Amino acid sequence: MDIRKCAAEAIGTFWLTFAGCGSAVVAAAFPQVGIGLLGVSAAFGLTVVTMAYAIGHISGCHLNPAVTIGLAAGRRFPGRDIVPYIVSQLVGGVAAAGLLYVIASGAPGFDLAKGFAANGYGEHSPGQYSLVACFLAEVVLTLMFLFVIMGATHGKAPVGFAPLAIGLCLTLVHLVGIPITNLSVNPARSTGPALIVGGWAVAQLWLFWVAPVIGGALGGILYRWLSEEPAAQVTGMPTAAATH
Amino acid sequence: MDIRKCAAEAIGTFWLTFAGCGSAVVAAAFPQVGIGLLGVSAAFGLTVVTMAYAIGHISGCHLNPAVTIGLAAGRRFPGRDIVPYIVSQLVGGVAAAGLLYVIASGAPGFDLAKGFAANGYGEHSPGQYSLVACFLAEVVLTLMFLFVIMGATHGKAPVGFAPLAIGLCLTLVHLVGIPITNLSVNPARSTGPALIVGGWAVAQLWLFWVAPVIGGALGGILYRWLSEEPAAQVTGMPTAAATH
Amino acid sequence: MDIRKCAAEAIGTFWLTFAGCGSAVVAAAFPQVGIGLLGVSAAFGLTVVTMAYAIGHISGCHLNPAVTIGLAAGRRFPGRDIVPYIVSQLVGGVAAAGLLYVIASGAPGFDLAKGFAANGYGEHSPGQYSLVACFLAEVVLTLMFLFVIMGATHGKAPVGFAPLAIGLCLTLVHLVGIPITNLSVNPARSTGPALIVGGWAVAQLWLFWVAPVIGGALGGILYRWLSEEPAAQVTGMPTAAATH
Amino acid sequence: MDIRKCAAEAIGTFWLTFAGCGSAVVAAAFPQVGIGLLGVSAAFGLTVVTMAYAIGHISGCHLNPAVTIGLAAGRRFPGRDIVPYIVSQLVGGVAAAGLLYVIASGAPGFDLAKGFAANGYGEHSPGQYSLVACFLAEVVLTLMFLFVIMGATHGKAPVGFAPLAIGLCLTLVHLVGIPITNLSVNPARSTGPALIVGGWAVAQLWLFWVAPVIGGALGGILYRWLSEEPAAQVTGMPTAAATH
Repeated sequence: MDIRKCAAEAIGTFWLTFAGCGSAVVAAAFPQVGIGLLGVSAAFGLTVVTMAYAIGHISGCHLNPAVTIGLAAGRRFPGRDIVPYIVSQLVGGVAAAGLLYVIASGAPGFDLAKGFAANGYGEHSPGQYSLVACFLAEVVLTLMFLFVIMGATHGKAPVGFAPLAIGLCLTLVHLVGIPITNLSVNPARSTGPALIVGGWAVAQLWLFWVAPVIGGALGGILYRWLSEEPAAQVTGMPTAAATH
Repeated sequence: MDIRKCAAEAIGTFWLTFAGCGSAVVAAAFPQVGIGLLGVSAAFGLTVVTMAYAIGHISGCHLNPAVTIGLAAGRRFPGRDIVPYIVSQLVGGVAAAGLLYVIASGAPGFDLAKGFAANGYGEHSPGQYSLVACFLAEVVLTLMFLFVIMGATHGKAPVGFAPLAIGLCLTLVHLVGIPITNLSVNPARSTGPALIVGGWAVAQLWLFWVAPVIGGALGGILYRWLSEEPAAQVTGMPTAAATH
Repeated sequence: MDIRKCAAEAIGTFWLTFAGCGSAVVAAAFPQVGIGLLGVSAAFGLTVVTMAYAIGHISGCHLNPAVTIGLAAGRRFPGRDIVPYIVSQLVGGVAAAGLLYVIASGAPGFDLAKGFAANGYGEHSPGQYSLVACFLAEVVLTLMFLFVIMGATHGKAPVGFAPLAIGLCLTLVHLVGIPITNLSVNPARSTGPALIVGGWAVAQLWLFWVAPVIGGALGGILYRWLSEEPAAQVTGMPTAAATH
Repeated sequence: MDIRKCAAEAIGTFWLTFAGCGSAVVAAAFPQVGIGLLGVSAAFGLTVVTMAYAIGHISGCHLNPAVTIGLAAGRRFPGRDIVPYIVSQLVGGVAAAGLLYVIASGAPGFDLAKGFAANGYGEHSPGQYSLVACFLAEVVLTLMFLFVIMGATHGKAPVGFAPLAIGLCLTLVHLVGIPITNLSVNPARSTGPALIVGGWAVAQLWLFWVAPVIGGALGGILYRWLSEEPAAQVTGMPTAAATH
């Protein structure tokens, strides 16, 4: 395992969590001119657009355990690298939540009880969606996210556009899903804020590991079936995801 | 007819309907931070951007009976494949509406009477636009949508950008037309929610088949006239639409 | 003069005026979920993005007398084609305003006195900006718009991205300027709604011809000086603007 | 030092400051349909997208002393050109603030006490964030901005997309940071409005030089370490930043 790839995944996942959750905590509900859920959706997507162009050629820019597992399920990523990638992503996500806490708590009105962008279901869902609805939404949205990642990085897709397609897909799933679960589709992004908030956020964290991983794996498998890719194609570009 | 193409069209139209209508039902009017019609317009467009990069190289990524018919009218798509494409699109659109219903009804405030993103005219138009205004708007917006699709996938257009141009065009027509008809330009997207809502939505569904199909066919013909494409050009890339 | 180029300019300017002004008239102030000035800015920009990919290879996709004159001043467009281009653009802009009137007046709350997206200064400026401020804003914003057009279509700029750069530049000038003049930078787009509104809108129309044309010419000249383009470069691609 | 490069940097930084700050001053809080912080974030980003395509091939399109210094720290820009670039950027930023003042003061409700888009901390932070929080935010956001610039212009990144990645990264940092400091990451953009506002804005200007320069240098160094670029690579394209 190349240390540079792990560093890139940690930095990239730091960026996704810091800027994505940061836009939600700092700017979403700012009086009168707040960016709203549309701005938060744009922010999450742009973390991936920017990082995929910056580090796609180093690590593939997964930034997300569900992406790493989904690409492995789709035979685009070697199984032996799954663990170091996920550990790196967790380091980045947790560091981002910590730094965001230091900055956000520098404002007089800061209140951790507002949620700190942690994901939740049931009474902790922004729109109080049921556990079943939240589970279904996370599975389906992660499934389609991986489907798009697999397709946009396929050898027949236009070269160079995958970071746009993938980042804008993350924006899209947020446009649908923030009221449901605050939108995860990414266990590393969920873990950081949950550790800061503690209590209910940690107790509900399991869903934001289980559902995205199931959805991601299904998405990788579905696309592989659709594109009839030979398994051998994995050789040669084992970590390529976002920018082939 | 290739089963993979049909599956791709079904999955893609599922995505367009699920995420597009989903953003409207779940997030548009969320208190204080809702994404509004701008966010819904972005969501519909991004479903096409993401799918066109993911499956454009498989099926051409029509996701819309009016697109399929418009491309056939513009001699870019073989007539014998129209029916299987449209059937696949309908399967995807209806499945999406069903799943969206299951998820959306998991929230305490859910009310199907709010419309569930179904299209309508007259008293069921969001801004109560007349039947004539609604018909004209759907014809003109679908016409221009097909005009852009034909142009952006023309052999002289820059390679690889068509998914962006086409998806952002769908965003654009929504920015204009949601207050008029809730914006269709796509009979498959209209059929799904109409079947869930029933009653008036089914009774008004005819317009969202007739107007987009007329507009789409006119758009395909207009561009073909403008570009003076020889009919023979259709051979060799019969299903290419969004990405060639 | 090729009739296809004129038709392309007319259709494209129709689209810019219909969808740009249409988003303002129909959707900007829709209750609770309206798209606001941000949505209108996005809509104007996307008309150019979509058309530049669709017809850039036919006519260069000017859609704007100030662009045509600015490109001529920058020696990218032959002087003998200026008049037919501008006439075509006016036909498109006026037709768009007429059709938009037919559709928009199909809603119960329609009121032409709200302005119908016509441009104005002084008491008819949305923010009641003075004539001097309005004149300066239109000159500077058109100047920079042409500067970007000249640069993004330069032979050394990345191939294929000019439609994005130019369309997004139109979005940008709207983000700044709608409160000042309702933002023109385009005499054809201004003329259509002014003819529908009549009265003050026609009386103030002169500014939206004079200022954009001055700004456009200055922008073309400034970029030519900066890039030290030899005048001979104009030969060979006389009408190329948006997509070279 | 080439005078054309200096002129390009001055014009580009004029554009960034005029249109970015202009959108904030003129349109952000416009009644009912204002563009909000999301629109301002989009505007700042689009100034870079548009200019990077227009002048990237002339000067590299830095438009920002922190970018110039960060690229030098990352060994992508020769140290001897730092001073003329920064002087040019300052000329552009100050000229933009002056012109914006002339235009904005042409509206009846104009009030310089609202801040004129100047950056501030503590009681002059939009959300009253502490000095420490503001300093940290500016350092981290500039660091990541330079990291993305270095990566997106790396030789292995997809060709032609760097202006999009870099401009959208500027949008992203604004989505997070406007409530904290009004967001600088750019000393030239900060200096212009500060000179117009005077008083507290000039007194607090030091932070918007120190923090972005530190962050920029760290970002350049971090990426260079990550990508293990040989120092020799700087030869041959000494000023290339945005579009290689």
